[in-house]
Amino acid sequence: MVGLFSEFAILKKVRRTGWTWRNVPDPESIADHCYRVNLIAMMLCDALNRSVKNKNERFDAEKVMRMATLHEIAECRIGDIPYPAQKYIGSGVKTMAETKAVRDMLEGFGNGYVELWEEFENAASREGKLVKAADKFEMLLQALEYEKAGVKTLSDFWENEDTLKQIGFTPELKKLADHLVGVRKKLNR
Amino acid sequence: MVGLFSEFAILKKVRRTGWTWRNVPDPESIADHCYRVNLIAMMLCDALNRSVKNKNERFDAEKVMRMATLHEIAECRIGDIPYPAQKYIGSGVKTMAETKAVRDMLEGFGNGYVELWEEFENAASREGKLVKAADKFEMLLQALEYEKAGVKTLSDFWENEDTLKQIGFTPELKKLADHLVGVRKKLNR
Amino acid sequence: MVGLFSEFAILKKVRRTGWTWRNVPDPESIADHCYRVNLIAMMLCDALNRSVKNKNERFDAEKVMRMATLHEIAECRIGDIPYPAQKYIGSGVKTMAETKAVRDMLEGFGNGYVELWEEFENAASREGKLVKAADKFEMLLQALEYEKAGVKTLSDFWENEDTLKQIGFTPELKKLADHLVGVRKKLNR
Amino acid sequence: MVGLFSEFAILKKVRRTGWTWRNVPDPESIADHCYRVNLIAMMLCDALNRSVKNKNERFDAEKVMRMATLHEIAECRIGDIPYPAQKYIGSGVKTMAETKAVRDMLEGFGNGYVELWEEFENAASREGKLVKAADKFEMLLQALEYEKAGVKTLSDFWENEDTLKQIGFTPELKKLADHLVGVRKKLNR
Amino acid sequence: MVGLFSEFAILKKVRRTGWTWRNVPDPESIADHCYRVNLIAMMLCDALNRSVKNKNERFDAEKVMRMATLHEIAECRIGDIPYPAQKYIGSGVKTMAETKAVRDMLEGFGNGYVELWEEFENAASREGKLVKAADKFEMLLQALEYEKAGVKTLSDFWENEDTLKQIGFTPELKKLADHLVGVRKKLNR
Amino acid sequence: MVGLFSEFAILKKVRRTGWTWRNVPDPESIADHCYRVNLIAMMLCDALNRSVKNKNERFDAEKVMRMATLHEIAECRIGDIPYPAQKYIGSGVKTMAETKAVRDMLEGFGNGYVELWEEFENAASREGKLVKAADKFEMLLQALEYEKAGVKTLSDFWENEDTLKQIGFTPELKKLADHLVGVRKKLNR
Repeated sequence: MVGLFSEFAILKKVRRTGWTWRNVPDPESIADHCYRVNLIAMMLCDALNRSVKNKNERFDAEKVMRMATLHEIAECRIGDIPYPAQKYIGSGVKTMAETKAVRDMLEGFGNGYVELWEEFENAASREGKLVKAADKFEMLLQALEYEKAGVKTLSDFWENEDTLKQIGFTPELKKLADHLVGVRKKLNR
Repeated sequence: MVGLFSEFAILKKVRRTGWTWRNVPDPESIADHCYRVNLIAMMLCDALNRSVKNKNERFDAEKVMRMATLHEIAECRIGDIPYPAQKYIGSGVKTMAETKAVRDMLEGFGNGYVELWEEFENAASREGKLVKAADKFEMLLQALEYEKAGVKTLSDFWENEDTLKQIGFTPELKKLADHLVGVRKKLNR
Repeated sequence: MVGLFSEFAILKKVRRTGWTWRNVPDPESIADHCYRVNLIAMMLCDALNRSVKNKNERFDAEKVMRMATLHEIAECRIGDIPYPAQKYIGSGVKTMAETKAVRDMLEGFGNGYVELWEEFENAASREGKLVKAADKFEMLLQALEYEKAGVKTLSDFWENEDTLKQIGFTPELKKLADHLVGVRKKLNR
Repeated sequence: MVGLFSEFAILKKVRRTGWTWRNVPDPESIADHCYRVNLIAMMLCDALNRSVKNKNERFDAEKVMRMATLHEIAECRIGDIPYPAQKYIGSGVKTMAETKAVRDMLEGFGNGYVELWEEFENAASREGKLVKAADKFEMLLQALEYEKAGVKTLSDFWENEDTLKQIGFTPELKKLADHLVGVRKKLNR
Repeated sequence: MVGLFSEFAILKKVRRTGWTWRNVPDPESIADHCYRVNLIAMMLCDALNRSVKNKNERFDAEKVMRMATLHEIAECRIGDIPYPAQKYIGSGVKTMAETKAVRDMLEGFGNGYVELWEEFENAASREGKLVKAADKFEMLLQALEYEKAGVKTLSDFWENEDTLKQIGFTPELKKLADHLVGVRKKLNR
Repeated sequence: MVGLFSEFAILKKVRRTGWTWRNVPDPESIADHCYRVNLIAMMLCDALNRSVKNKNERFDAEKVMRMATLHEIAECRIGDIPYPAQKYIGSGVKTMAETKAVRDMLEGFGNGYVELWEEFENAASREGKLVKAADKFEMLLQALEYEKAGVKTLSDFWENEDTLKQIGFTPELKKLADHLVGVRKKLNR
């Protein structure tokens, strides 16, 4: 187990290629990103659960947190493959490679770790969708923060409809996404 | 809520003073540390629960993960007060300041966030103790990794009996701590 | 004495939290700041003394330089407590902690080091006020330089009336402050 | 063409994953590596050509330099896939992805750029072998330099027989490799 | 030869003073710059040669690449003397110092290395002029990229008529320079 | 005056070439160095003055501090010329260039700034010698600190007899130098 814990250190060192490929000076590590995803996912989950009327619509908070914690774990072995590479490698191959890496790392520990990671990857449950939303929201928030530090190359992060859709999969989350877009517009006015 | 999420970004920027004060070049951020604590706490919790016979001795995994996620949150506003400062500020004042900051940030969101943070601070439950153990284990593991990168100023991290005791609060965790100490001895032989 | 000199190295490593908390990428060290304060304090002191008519209004240059050299020395042990923390720790506690740290470090060496540091802290003399002015002027100048590098989060440094008042405590210095504000307005027009 | 030149900037930003995955603090960029490969390849080529008796054994210097300049160009789009990832992605897929990326980037410019890159990849000619040797030699030399800066995690770079074989494909180059291994042994004695 | 290769490592570490003196955060290394000059020089050379009608106007590609590879080599020993220093040291002294350094480093290896470096320095041939053009074009392109990252202090790079003239020494290259100036104007509109 | 203050910012950005040329990762700025020289010079001056019997042997503290503050000021315009360059540029030219730069920057302000800088350069007085001693002592202390962080390339800093002689120009300072050498020996045993 210590060997695996030690391998996780990689995530502190690897910079998010989304920023590197956009000229951002000294960008955050993968672990930096993951940690805020953990916080955001937990707090969004709790906030959504408070306002839920129908019990079936509640999110399983423990599951959300486990998924958030594991969602980038494949990058320990695969790295953060940059966006332009995905077209050449193929998203099928990428997913398969990540799946194999996650299995090699985590299968022996049971606890459904591998299954949770897959559920996130496929956004195959309400919890998976929520962690995806937190993941994308964190990314846009960071984009905004880099724009405040001067970076001018991030507008296509904001023009990607997919990102906004992934965040806004409930009405409350849609409001949150719209709010962020509004804040950003003010900054650049 | 977005304002608070934005404030969390600070944890990506602030370097752990424990390393800065020991001459470590380009040390990790607080978020880097927290993210690995999340992973370690979750996996240790699950591993300990698997081997538990008496149901009362099980750790509440959701609680463990919430605590791990929140355990350094006060540093958004207080910063990472360096070790030598604690003698001058007084650990009472430090705890009180952190408590007030956590309340200001999180009280409005309910969900027992403030109470969880306090339970961790005081190691006031088995879950609090487990997250403390993960926190300290992560720190020693990182110390070892910096020693592999050449740093020679970290031996007092290893000579601190308190740290080893906080990690080894169950027999299984004591074994884990001893194992790490053993790996380190080999490195420096 | 060598032990103390070695401790001073911390000031080369610790980044100014005023910048870190405002998203500035790769900000200056405390020592970077202090060194320019030394230069600015010396040169302002000499310039003011040249134009003084009443002998009583002359600044004691040696005292100014000693104060400038010592003005952040407490941060070796206390670190650079970030602005939002001051509300939680209380400025009384902060000052007391810093005072104790300065005493522990410097009292044994005599030469009035501790008293000079306190005189600066309290701006309790014309020399103390001048070093404060140099300290704040250096900070605004650095803010301007970060704005030239793209940072957009520093406007409240400029809107802080206190800062401008601390700089402009003589008519000549007020002119200097106004000049800097003017340069900045041009940049952002 | 300007768009492509601009894309090359990525190589200044991406750090070599071989170092990142081994705990090296603040490692070199891909461009840093490539530039020294250019220098080493040119000088080794010229030195080998001087001592050649049989005209057929001469290396084509222009070809060597073109290959050296192009040898990592795929990483603009694919990034520097870390060593552990190759097992999951498969070296076939990696090569195919890189080949497609190189074609997309360079095919329109003719001049045999794509073919040169492929010849290097396959070490399919004496020139390709020489650039491979320069590439590996540069890497070992950098490993040695990081070891001088304190890093203790690089011994398997030196124990990789393949690397030494790729460098030492002529008797003169074998001597060079042995020399470097000797220097390193002295350092660690 | 290994000693010399090792000395080249300096170029990975030394930052281009043109950026440092203009407030650019975390600027590129000399090697980063040189590598892209290699790429640009090779590709411009090939493109120009394709459209040449008169055989005498062809550029010797091998020579171009050798020059590009060697063009900053003096900085291993001299460093990157900042622009304001040149007035005090005198460009004669600078050139002489660089020439002596290049001789000490490279004369023993023959192959006309020293002569090539001098030919570049003096732009004494069509190939020398082309590498100078690539050198300056790379610099402006990098300036543009820093402007995209927020830097506001680089306009005098664009207002330097000499730079644009050195790039545009053939009609095709003049077009390229104009194109870049146009792209930049759009960015800052 | 503000323009000059702004120019001083360069000293926060330029890294000491003595470390860069020795493979030290992420080395200190010139300002980092200067600030500790200020502190060391002041404290050594005061300590020496306390033990002086003959009034003529007292150091003029104000002069010492002015010199310490100004001692690297030429590097704003000349940069930190690396050690190997000095042989090629000639120490005469270097000094002359620095002198001219210091004059251009400071002559208009009077106050003997230029003369103080020259007195330091030539170690032409007891105060000049003391600041030189502080300058060299600071450098060795930093070398020791980098050795604690793992760097193995700094032994010739310690074997330079000149450095030790410049520090040890009074019996008390000689003791200090010997003490430091002793500490270092223990570290590497």
